[in-house]
Amino acid sequence: MATIRYLSRIEFEFGAIGLLPDLLTELGVEQPMLVTDPGVVAAGLVERAGTMRAAFLETPGNPTEDAVLAALEVYRAGGCDGLVALGGGSSIDLAKGVGLLASHAGSLSDFGVLAVSPKAIGPIAPVVAVPTTAGTGAEVGRAASITLRDGRKAACVSPMLIPKAVICDPELTLSLPPRMTAATGMDALSHGIESFVSTRVNPPAAAIALDCVARAGAWLVRAVEDGADREARWQMMMAALEGGMTFQKGLGAVHAASHPLGAFGLHHGTLNAVLLPAVLRFNADHAAEGYDRLAKAVGADDLADWVEGLNRRLDLPTGLREMGVAETDLPALAADAAADHLSETNPRPATAADYEAILRTAMG
Amino acid sequence: MATIRYLSRIEFEFGAIGLLPDLLTELGVEQPMLVTDPGVVAAGLVERAGTMRAAFLETPGNPTEDAVLAALEVYRAGGCDGLVALGGGSSIDLAKGVGLLASHAGSLSDFGVLAVSPKAIGPIAPVVAVPTTAGTGAEVGRAASITLRDGRKAACVSPMLIPKAVICDPELTLSLPPRMTAATGMDALSHGIESFVSTRVNPPAAAIALDCVARAGAWLVRAVEDGADREARWQMMMAALEGGMTFQKGLGAVHAASHPLGAFGLHHGTLNAVLLPAVLRFNADHAAEGYDRLAKAVGADDLADWVEGLNRRLDLPTGLREMGVAETDLPALAADAAADHLSETNPRPATAADYEAILRTAMG
Repeated sequence: MATIRYLSRIEFEFGAIGLLPDLLTELGVEQPMLVTDPGVVAAGLVERAGTMRAAFLETPGNPTEDAVLAALEVYRAGGCDGLVALGGGSSIDLAKGVGLLASHAGSLSDFGVLAVSPKAIGPIAPVVAVPTTAGTGAEVGRAASITLRDGRKAACVSPMLIPKAVICDPELTLSLPPRMTAATGMDALSHGIESFVSTRVNPPAAAIALDCVARAGAWLVRAVEDGADREARWQMMMAALEGGMTFQKGLGAVHAASHPLGAFGLHHGTLNAVLLPAVLRFNADHAAEGYDRLAKAVGADDLADWVEGLNRRLDLPTGLREMGVAETDLPALAADAAADHLSETNPRPATAADYEAILRTAMG
Repeated sequence: MATIRYLSRIEFEFGAIGLLPDLLTELGVEQPMLVTDPGVVAAGLVERAGTMRAAFLETPGNPTEDAVLAALEVYRAGGCDGLVALGGGSSIDLAKGVGLLASHAGSLSDFGVLAVSPKAIGPIAPVVAVPTTAGTGAEVGRAASITLRDGRKAACVSPMLIPKAVICDPELTLSLPPRMTAATGMDALSHGIESFVSTRVNPPAAAIALDCVARAGAWLVRAVEDGADREARWQMMMAALEGGMTFQKGLGAVHAASHPLGAFGLHHGTLNAVLLPAVLRFNADHAAEGYDRLAKAVGADDLADWVEGLNRRLDLPTGLREMGVAETDLPALAADAAADHLSETNPRPATAADYEAILRTAMG
């Protein structure tokens, strides 16, 4: 069992979900609400969470304001005092949103980073995150990104949103299908890559990012080709956790571009995978040393080529066009990407015109 | 400026001590007590801490129960509500001890890990750590090791003892003399080496440990040979911080052996340096892969040889004999080392007989 304490307390091992009842007791949570999605329900994982006071099972693919409010009603009706998020990034972010609104007056848009004057976020209802993908890193992240009713994204960011405890149980990912394993694995990889070369100074985070990339590079193909490989599942869950731990160093253009694309209902991890090669080449002169170090860590000559090859090997889409994006969408997407706060820490400054070129290249 | 959040919030930059007043305000501390030592006073660094309600300037080389109690009196007499530790590991640990006793009934021995049934440690008075050496890592550590009146060490260990905030200002180390720079630098290096191969599973800590070793390996000699080299001072302070961040992965035989030796009044970092080669060779078969990785990271063939060479280059003692230890001391020291909780995570199990052999080798 690995107990890791970096901002969060993480219990990491096969079968760790068995610790959940005691963990909830330790956190003083007596009436927990489960937050999960239909895929997790269908995979038969819900019963492993044990007894819950209430449950919200309908988390959508990307968390929405409506879903948060619906879950909040269930939370209040149940007299709940804490949340267990069992699922991917969407369930985890949704639980953070519920925890926030359960303890603060206001609506989600009041707390987002792009609000005119974002409201302060204080302590929220306790959230225990139990990821079932590997993964978004949301289990250790400070952010909850919720699509508001008007279509805009409210990115709520605060150390207060970090789940109080995390259970990383690779057992829960054994049944994750190859396509999802690939997509969420590429999400983890993108976190390590982006944070390693981001402009903020944070050597511990950079060290973890390097390990994340090396680990995902070594194990992702195996996890996709043989989902029953327990070692591969353990390794990818660790890589995903590490990717999440690097967020504080800042991400970059891949995430700045994939955020607005998320509003199209497209999968975040898949988008990151598809955008990576174009961004890596755009950044190349501004992050040469970093990319070389990462390439070496995965046994490759060129990082962009390697990622492209990996996408092909994992049978991911060849471009945004294949995912349903049209040329006419690009200018608006590019403008949103340039305005995304994550663009600020990209190693190379990127304008809307730059993003349009990147997106065009990534159309495939 | 690097703001790093891993259990603690760390503000890392030249001049960062200027943030102290605002940091104290943020933490709700209005009547801070300064904890420091005569060396820091002599170096003229105290005034940089700004206005303090009270001050304890007499922290000894290794923190003692008497010193904690004396400082506690000053704290109470001043009606203080928080502490600023400006100094090395001793000042930082002493401040933790004061914060503990200021908020808990009982005496230090009640809280130590070796107590029959250690009392629980809850929230303590806020401590801001401002290291002036590079360093012990105590600024991010969960432990406060205090020598009790009867000579035993009370190792108080709890996440509650982690300073609420840390200011890492390399400016404060510019005047650190070469001998101290070498000794505290070797302490930082020993943390990275020991945690990298310790038996606990914690990949993020291991990643940070690797970076710590590479960084200290690259910059310690420079920092010792030219103390005015700002880059070298920044790098060594970062290496020391990283070393402290790895503690949660567990240390090993070097620290298990240096702990009882600390009761002789000998410098902790110097002891670690002197003990390292013998321990590295004792562990060699049980940590071959890890040591190879570290050796590669510092550009060496053999890690033990490299450390020995480094000690010589830095003009550190050639052995324990030179530091005043006698052969007749060894059996008792060895027994204490084998019983030290840090021995549990050494990559190779070590008995009292093993420690006696290690210590004998390290006599020099």
